[in-house]
Amino acid sequence: MSLTIEALDERLTGRASESPDRSYTARLLSRGTSKCAQKLGEEAVETIIAAMSGDRDELVKESADLIYHWLVLLRSAGVELSDVMVELDRRTAQSGLEEKASREPNS
Amino acid sequence: MSLTIEALDERLTGRASESPDRSYTARLLSRGTSKCAQKLGEEAVETIIAAMSGDRDELVKESADLIYHWLVLLRSAGVELSDVMVELDRRTAQSGLEEKASREPNS
Amino acid sequence: MSLTIEALDERLTGRASESPDRSYTARLLSRGTSKCAQKLGEEAVETIIAAMSGDRDELVKESADLIYHWLVLLRSAGVELSDVMVELDRRTAQSGLEEKASREPNS
Amino acid sequence: MSLTIEALDERLTGRASESPDRSYTARLLSRGTSKCAQKLGEEAVETIIAAMSGDRDELVKESADLIYHWLVLLRSAGVELSDVMVELDRRTAQSGLEEKASREPNS
Repeated sequence: MSLTIEALDERLTGRASESPDRSYTARLLSRGTSKCAQKLGEEAVETIIAAMSGDRDELVKESADLIYHWLVLLRSAGVELSDVMVELDRRTAQSGLEEKASREPNS
Repeated sequence: MSLTIEALDERLTGRASESPDRSYTARLLSRGTSKCAQKLGEEAVETIIAAMSGDRDELVKESADLIYHWLVLLRSAGVELSDVMVELDRRTAQSGLEEKASREPNS
Repeated sequence: MSLTIEALDERLTGRASESPDRSYTARLLSRGTSKCAQKLGEEAVETIIAAMSGDRDELVKESADLIYHWLVLLRSAGVELSDVMVELDRRTAQSGLEEKASREPNS
Repeated sequence: MSLTIEALDERLTGRASESPDRSYTARLLSRGTSKCAQKLGEEAVETIIAAMSGDRDELVKESADLIYHWLVLLRSAGVELSDVMVELDRRTAQSGLEEKASREPNS
């Protein structure tokens, strides 16, 4: 069975406590939320480009980067992964279009 | 226990088979990969802005949007979630800075 | 001769002074810098997707959206277009690779 | 008087004809449209973060990066700057809200 996102998040807890010299995760966290947000944005751009290029291997790699940096951003901002999963559960328990309607009242 | 991302992805399998009139997920998939990629990008932008604003509730909501639209994009592009989790496992089994070095040889 | 970006920026000065009910520009400015930044990000995503799709007409349209929203963002943030043009002049007066080196010392 | 965007674009014509070893512009163009689109996206992310940080000097610098990379992307994709300026002229000659309505019929 493959790694769950919760287990990945726990690995990051370990990395976050290492020295910034040894751990990329710790180093990124030490640079603050705006740096983490920047990295998330860059990886989203690369994910889009991989998808538009039709390159599935690249999309797997860029998606891994995106999810990793997203977890680091949550950590930097003091948000728990479980809060996001609860929100996703709540939304997707509804039917599709109703869910969209509830989510974007002003769009 | 909260929803896992794998269980969420399975919910989307159900939604994807519904009519685009009833399901937002099915409708988004019917519009093609470029539309899914656009939505991923928009949600990444909103996630960045929520993080920079220091608004944790908003970051939870925008993160939920980001992850949902990322899963839809993978599906549109024919990429399995499990392939991304295997890639994340492989990378994070290494130590932090080594991992970064192996990932970005040219940067 | 076509519109210059400076003349466009002056048009926005006129729009910015209108009622938000009448002018999209005024309405966007009234919503604050984070909304203007969000719109810039969305238009950048659409510009990327148009370029990756090889659709030149779409790239023209999305580029127009990008530049318009960028000028609105500058205005919202209290930055003068002329300051950006001075910076662009300074950088591009140098030769290419030297310029890049001076611009990104830590990348 | 400061540099116009048209004069900047002409400088890039000169740079584009240099060797990729000497010119950052030529090197970027040699890497193709997807690389140029990626750089545009990265600079848009940095522009957003500078604006959200309230750092006007940084916003000037990141805006210069954004506009420069946007011009390189147009060039890579075979789109003329003048076509974008004509589109901007056409749109902003209308009143604000009408213009928005004509631009986003499906949003």
